[in-house]
Amino acid sequence: MSTKLQGIILAAGKSTRFNANKTKLAERICGQKMILYSTKLLEELNIPTTVVVGYQKNQIKKIITKEHKNRVSFSTQDTQEGTGHALAITKDIWEKEHLLVINGDVPLVTKDIIEQLYNKHKENNAALSFVIAHNPDPSNSSYGRIIKTDDGIKIVESKDFHGDTHEHCCVNAGIYIITKKFLTQHIQSLENKNANKEFYITDLVKIASDKGLSVATITAPFDYVRGINTYQELWAAEQVKRSELIKYWMERGVRFSVAQNVHIDLPVSIGSGSYIGCGVHLLGNTTIGKNCKIHEFSSLQNTTLKNDVTIYAHCIIKDAHIETHAQIGPYAHVREETHIGSHTIIGNFVEVKKSTIGDHTKAKHLSYLGDATIGSQVNIGAGTITCNHDGLKKQKTIIEDHAYIGSNNSIVAPVTIHKEAYTGAGSVITKDVPENALAIGRARQINKGGYAKKLRNRKETTDAKKTKPAKKDVEKNDDKFAFLGARVIDQDIKSSEET
Amino acid sequence: MSTKLQGIILAAGKSTRFNANKTKLAERICGQKMILYSTKLLEELNIPTTVVVGYQKNQIKKIITKEHKNRVSFSTQDTQEGTGHALAITKDIWEKEHLLVINGDVPLVTKDIIEQLYNKHKENNAALSFVIAHNPDPSNSSYGRIIKTDDGIKIVESKDFHGDTHEHCCVNAGIYIITKKFLTQHIQSLENKNANKEFYITDLVKIASDKGLSVATITAPFDYVRGINTYQELWAAEQVKRSELIKYWMERGVRFSVAQNVHIDLPVSIGSGSYIGCGVHLLGNTTIGKNCKIHEFSSLQNTTLKNDVTIYAHCIIKDAHIETHAQIGPYAHVREETHIGSHTIIGNFVEVKKSTIGDHTKAKHLSYLGDATIGSQVNIGAGTITCNHDGLKKQKTIIEDHAYIGSNNSIVAPVTIHKEAYTGAGSVITKDVPENALAIGRARQINKGGYAKKLRNRKETTDAKKTKPAKKDVEKNDDKFAFLGARVIDQDIKSSEET
Amino acid sequence: MSTKLQGIILAAGKSTRFNANKTKLAERICGQKMILYSTKLLEELNIPTTVVVGYQKNQIKKIITKEHKNRVSFSTQDTQEGTGHALAITKDIWEKEHLLVINGDVPLVTKDIIEQLYNKHKENNAALSFVIAHNPDPSNSSYGRIIKTDDGIKIVESKDFHGDTHEHCCVNAGIYIITKKFLTQHIQSLENKNANKEFYITDLVKIASDKGLSVATITAPFDYVRGINTYQELWAAEQVKRSELIKYWMERGVRFSVAQNVHIDLPVSIGSGSYIGCGVHLLGNTTIGKNCKIHEFSSLQNTTLKNDVTIYAHCIIKDAHIETHAQIGPYAHVREETHIGSHTIIGNFVEVKKSTIGDHTKAKHLSYLGDATIGSQVNIGAGTITCNHDGLKKQKTIIEDHAYIGSNNSIVAPVTIHKEAYTGAGSVITKDVPENALAIGRARQINKGGYAKKLRNRKETTDAKKTKPAKKDVEKNDDKFAFLGARVIDQDIKSSEET
Repeated sequence: MSTKLQGIILAAGKSTRFNANKTKLAERICGQKMILYSTKLLEELNIPTTVVVGYQKNQIKKIITKEHKNRVSFSTQDTQEGTGHALAITKDIWEKEHLLVINGDVPLVTKDIIEQLYNKHKENNAALSFVIAHNPDPSNSSYGRIIKTDDGIKIVESKDFHGDTHEHCCVNAGIYIITKKFLTQHIQSLENKNANKEFYITDLVKIASDKGLSVATITAPFDYVRGINTYQELWAAEQVKRSELIKYWMERGVRFSVAQNVHIDLPVSIGSGSYIGCGVHLLGNTTIGKNCKIHEFSSLQNTTLKNDVTIYAHCIIKDAHIETHAQIGPYAHVREETHIGSHTIIGNFVEVKKSTIGDHTKAKHLSYLGDATIGSQVNIGAGTITCNHDGLKKQKTIIEDHAYIGSNNSIVAPVTIHKEAYTGAGSVITKDVPENALAIGRARQINKGGYAKKLRNRKETTDAKKTKPAKKDVEKNDDKFAFLGARVIDQDIKSSEET
Repeated sequence: MSTKLQGIILAAGKSTRFNANKTKLAERICGQKMILYSTKLLEELNIPTTVVVGYQKNQIKKIITKEHKNRVSFSTQDTQEGTGHALAITKDIWEKEHLLVINGDVPLVTKDIIEQLYNKHKENNAALSFVIAHNPDPSNSSYGRIIKTDDGIKIVESKDFHGDTHEHCCVNAGIYIITKKFLTQHIQSLENKNANKEFYITDLVKIASDKGLSVATITAPFDYVRGINTYQELWAAEQVKRSELIKYWMERGVRFSVAQNVHIDLPVSIGSGSYIGCGVHLLGNTTIGKNCKIHEFSSLQNTTLKNDVTIYAHCIIKDAHIETHAQIGPYAHVREETHIGSHTIIGNFVEVKKSTIGDHTKAKHLSYLGDATIGSQVNIGAGTITCNHDGLKKQKTIIEDHAYIGSNNSIVAPVTIHKEAYTGAGSVITKDVPENALAIGRARQINKGGYAKKLRNRKETTDAKKTKPAKKDVEKNDDKFAFLGARVIDQDIKSSEET
Repeated sequence: MSTKLQGIILAAGKSTRFNANKTKLAERICGQKMILYSTKLLEELNIPTTVVVGYQKNQIKKIITKEHKNRVSFSTQDTQEGTGHALAITKDIWEKEHLLVINGDVPLVTKDIIEQLYNKHKENNAALSFVIAHNPDPSNSSYGRIIKTDDGIKIVESKDFHGDTHEHCCVNAGIYIITKKFLTQHIQSLENKNANKEFYITDLVKIASDKGLSVATITAPFDYVRGINTYQELWAAEQVKRSELIKYWMERGVRFSVAQNVHIDLPVSIGSGSYIGCGVHLLGNTTIGKNCKIHEFSSLQNTTLKNDVTIYAHCIIKDAHIETHAQIGPYAHVREETHIGSHTIIGNFVEVKKSTIGDHTKAKHLSYLGDATIGSQVNIGAGTITCNHDGLKKQKTIIEDHAYIGSNNSIVAPVTIHKEAYTGAGSVITKDVPENALAIGRARQINKGGYAKKLRNRKETTDAKKTKPAKKDVEKNDDKFAFLGARVIDQDIKSSEET
């Protein structure tokens, strides 16, 4: 845009009405912190920008600097004396012919609105121009009202407005372009004789109007200029933004089963032909390929899916990379630093963390795979656990191509199971398994005939007696009934082993 | 309120249009049974109350008595002859100067509406006063219509109304204040010459009007006087109540990610700075501290979270108490009588029941902890199961401070693992482990070189032959291919053990 | 309906605006593919039907033939030259006196609309009759506009319409009845002098009107005649259909906790007194009995629930049959070919596949039951896994009545656990267990006093030195600290075993 324009973003306010003791400007809308909507808008428009900070200023500066490096400058308003006071503070840095002043809590403003306002400002040779909108909910009284009379135009702040909100449904959006000349002459004329005892930018409108200077306005859709002073307004604004994003992806060939409860962050991209189920969350830098299916109630964050991946219902996937035709879930939890190969299947109640898994591998049931490198065409039996923590630190598990891990294995890292090796069901694997070897680490089964019946009879006898042996007795007494896989069994086995 | 007022709640109807063979008055709205909205409202207003019961009267009496003890009295209407008949039945207990008559299926009425109605009733010195509302959906014809003519005012019940519902959009809310004097004189004048052959209270309006007595009305917002005659109306009313609750908590500093599908019951409280994700259910007497995070699709019932607790996605928590900075989930199922300590982590696919867990303890993966007392700074390895059922009853597991349970342990209760003890991965723990001891209960691993290859060759040969051995053969034949952790392996191990 | 009517469904279009490279007509709405809404409607009305196919014609023919066998015939439009061209192609098969022409992408049309249109057509002795609707969203410009002037009536296709969409809010629904006589005379008069260079059926309206022939119209609710040209329109139509279905079931005594995100397919049926929670998906041929409860976020597909079944939250059930009073979940995954008996309990993190389970059986925690036949009154301990895959194929597990499986068992199929048998916790069961026998297959526990402390000291010493042994060292060195269930333990046990 014009090189005659510089930007001032007002971001010093206290977020009082949020009642949460933190600045609203750090709240996220579709994954992006609120204040960055304004700063990024002005950067896109090539408008050099100063942000006036105050409440929780260090946090806000940190957020902005992380995004914009040193391309945005700051002024500090130490006392809360209103928007006019905030603007006055920046006086020394006014350089350009016109100042664009915008509230930091109006995140949905578009480039188009700023451009329209500037064009109107120039066309009208205005001293001051601003954006107005029709408020569809007159009960919402938090906006300044536009009052046009034969004498001119003015804005009355909501706390000072006592008229009919239905009649005066045109509200101030908090976006102004003001000539430096006018501002320099009149910023000191502002007074704080109002309900809040604050200096208001909005009073400049009346000053310009009273002096017969040109005041220009444009009208923008209310949804784009929603200000955010409460959690309700934040929620409403996020609804608008989410609807926009969903409409955008629908137009690009993405099917949504029910759009009202899907969460999509700004940076997400979705390939055409993909399907997004009910309640799906796509967060952060998530990239979905073409013809993927994400079923109901699954959440993905900072995750890449290549084409033709299926995520079944109720999955949680974060910081992972998943290759084509993989199938994940339902109820799979895929965590950070995980890479899952093409055509690989990760099934239900399986957690994968910091692991690399090759192609055409299966881990379908009730497993924990952590800090593991697993090859291709491997089969991980149900209930397998990589025991990756040795009490001191995490250890690595390596399972090479074509290995077959039986069910319910405990794989005690560090350990390597070499190519085409097998392990028996129920094994505890503590030593490396050579290529093509069979490893088995479990006890042999013993059947003790009639023993269950005998124990059941004891139990029933005990039940009949309604006696309840003390714990001490249970431990010592051979007649105890805690027979199922409990001590009595060990006693029995011991006897049988001894004989 | 005035001591001149007594209340009659009409709760005898058949809930016919629910089509569910049960009284609608026992259906819950935001966790509270419908009939209690009326009874609690009148109790808050200090209005002595009689409830007219009929259909499923014992159930309704039980619900009310559980809440109000003997502070509410009952009359019984044994035959379904209309609201006028129901009111007539209570004649003997009319004591106060005015009777407040209210339907039991109008749960969203506020104190303010009753107070306004009574004030208007007194101001107008009315014989009868009632509440009307503008029905925004004229297609909904289940309400009595208000007909005002030069001759006076009357209410026409919906089944008898054949006019234009758009024109007559003012409907009867079913809330009346009637002087005892008027009622005593005219209750017997009611007739049942109408579509339903019932006696209607609403006909008293015409009687009063015809006699030139004062009839007063107030107008209330339709949402607050919604009557509930169908599941659709129940759903609509609950939507209104939920929105109210969400707005209430938003104003107190709680962020909701998407409010439309969040369930909050009436008694729930939420601290400021907390975040409530998509689809979260907060039910019963649940109390959320400050700065807690409840992520998407988690449900909490009768649960207390202290400050700074994080509940990750897809958790179900019921009747539990969770201390500050604990982290639960995702996919954690925390059940009754559970107490989780400060900074403790309960991870994915973990179920905890009737257990007390200390501070800074971790149970992160695929575990079942039931009837356990677990100390502080304990580590519970992945896949650990407390075998708490001995076939007869539940037994207790005690794990003391700083103990470290290896992965995939079966801990057979009753058992105590003492302080700073360790257990090896894959162990079955059946005996107490002394302080500082290492317990291990698992078989040693044996690798049989080349055996996997040999078995694979057999399998391939068998495949080539396309023969399918009978089960009997599989059991007997050494040449079988059920080699993975199956019998053949046992045979092999046996051989190796024997040699 | 009348035997003088035959139907032509236009289904040759390219679905260009879906941007997904596949025909929109195969997209599902409430579980039914879009094209089948039209074909089934006409079949219900006994109207012999021809479908004009083009884009992805084989797929569309296959979908229709699967449903209707050879009761529907096809014509092929090889080039995309518009609806008029598509209709002209069918000329040879025009047999009946009137042709019903309907777009294949207008799925919500009702029998009533067709019948009304035909009645009006006959009453007016019309050459051509069609359905119009009031479009409530004028910004949606994808519909042809109805223009009525003193000169007559015509339809202007949206791409050729440049008027005020607010003023001309009446749109063409794409449903026509045309006399064969008129059509035969004038189909060749259509021209393609328009924005799209296509031949339009809609131009027949102007032709009839210009010739002074009778043109009849009926007006239908917009929701029933929504055309689907984008994923947004598909989503909107599915919302309408879902709301209809939910209203339908509410009227039949079903309670929905929040209806906006519930998915119900067309063939689903739900018994009265049942409760459907937030986000529940009821898909395919699912049948729910009376007084069932389906809690939040559970999905059922092609599943039968008998009366009084409870499905707790977060379950996924597909192709299963569940008897009365069973309780499933939360977090249960019940898969294909599963039959669950009366009063049986399947608990959390349990997967069941191709299994038959008797009555009053319990499998409550962290289990995988695949290819199993399980009797009645069986108890399956937590963490139990049926090791059903032997590396070659799936094998069967049989567990007979009253058997009790201890926790954390690995049951290696093929295997039978006979009646009233018991297995110890942590066992690997590889051999059949006789009736009444106790089977145990696990190692005995050894406690090594003070060993944990010793190892901890070594660890701390190592920590203090901040040395990090190479993996080779770890494997060889007796001083290593990978002590928990890892190799050092095995070394220790070995020593203790040797001494």
